Amino acid sequence: MPESTAVWQGGLEFSISQDDHEFTIDGSAEFGGRDRGVRPKSLILTALIGCTGMDVVSILEKMKIRIYGLTVTARGEYTEEHPKVFRYIKIEYKFTGDDLPLSKIERAVNLSQEKYCGVSEMLRGKMELSYDIILEKP
Amino acid sequence: MPESTAVWQGGLEFSISQDDHEFTIDGSAEFGGRDRGVRPKSLILTALIGCTGMDVVSILEKMKIRIYGLTVTARGEYTEEHPKVFRYIKIEYKFTGDDLPLSKIERAVNLSQEKYCGVSEMLRGKMELSYDIILEKP
Repeated sequence: MPESTAVWQGGLEFSISQDDHEFTIDGSAEFGGRDRGVRPKSLILTALIGCTGMDVVSILEKMKIRIYGLTVTARGEYTEEHPKVFRYIKIEYKFTGDDLPLSKIERAVNLSQEKYCGVSEMLRGKMELSYDIILEKP
Repeated sequence: MPESTAVWQGGLEFSISQDDHEFTIDGSAEFGGRDRGVRPKSLILTALIGCTGMDVVSILEKMKIRIYGLTVTARGEYTEEHPKVFRYIKIEYKFTGDDLPLSKIERAVNLSQEKYCGVSEMLRGKMELSYDIILEKP
C-alpha cells in the first residue's frame, strides 16, 4: 500500500519518509519557513513530470528508441483565492538527440497523457493541463 | 511561478530540481527501476500531508499551542484499471503531548481540510479522502 509519513521538525519543516527514502519539505522564508526543503504543493508538479516522464521513456524503450536525452519541466500558476490551487499546469518535454523520430515521440507522449499517467488523470478536470514537445540537436 | 524539472538519468531514474532543492525519483525493481529514489505517484501523498501538516502547525501556532509533536501519515490504494489512480487516501494526524486540547486540534485540522489545503482541494471529488486524529501521551 503506497504510504508517506511527515514528522514535524519545528517551524514549517517536516522530514518525509516515502518508499524507504527520506527528504525534507519546508516553507519559503516569505511564508515563515527556513527553506530547508521543497514546497509540498509544488510536489504536485514533480509527481506529474515524474509519472509522465517514466511512461514516455518506457514506451520509447518498447519502440526500441534509446539514444536521447529527456528533460521534463512543469510550470504552474495558482489561483488568487483560497484554497490556492493550480489554475493551470504546462508541461514541456525537451528531447535531445540526432534524428529524433517526432511521430513516435508524439505518440509516446500522447499515450502517457491520454492513457497511462495516473497523476494526469487525478488532476484532469480540476485545472487546465497542456504540454509542448521540443526536439533539440545535442 | 512554481516550477519543477526532471532530467532523465537512464532506466526510470530522474533527477528532480524543485524550489532550488534536488532529489531523485525512480521506479521500484518490480517495475524495472533501480529504487534510487521515491515513486512519483506517491508524491501525491507527500504533497497532501505536507500541505495539511504546514496548515495545522501554522493554525495551532496562531492559537498559541506550541509544545507537541506531530506525525502525519497518508496511505492510499490504487484502482485496478489503468490509468491507476488513488481510489482513496486516508490521512492520520498523530499528536504527541501532555494535556493536548482536542477541540482546538480538531478545529485546526478541519480548517486545513475544508478551507486552506490546496492539495486536498485539487484531489477532492477525484477520490475518497478521509482522516483520523490520534492524541498520544509522550
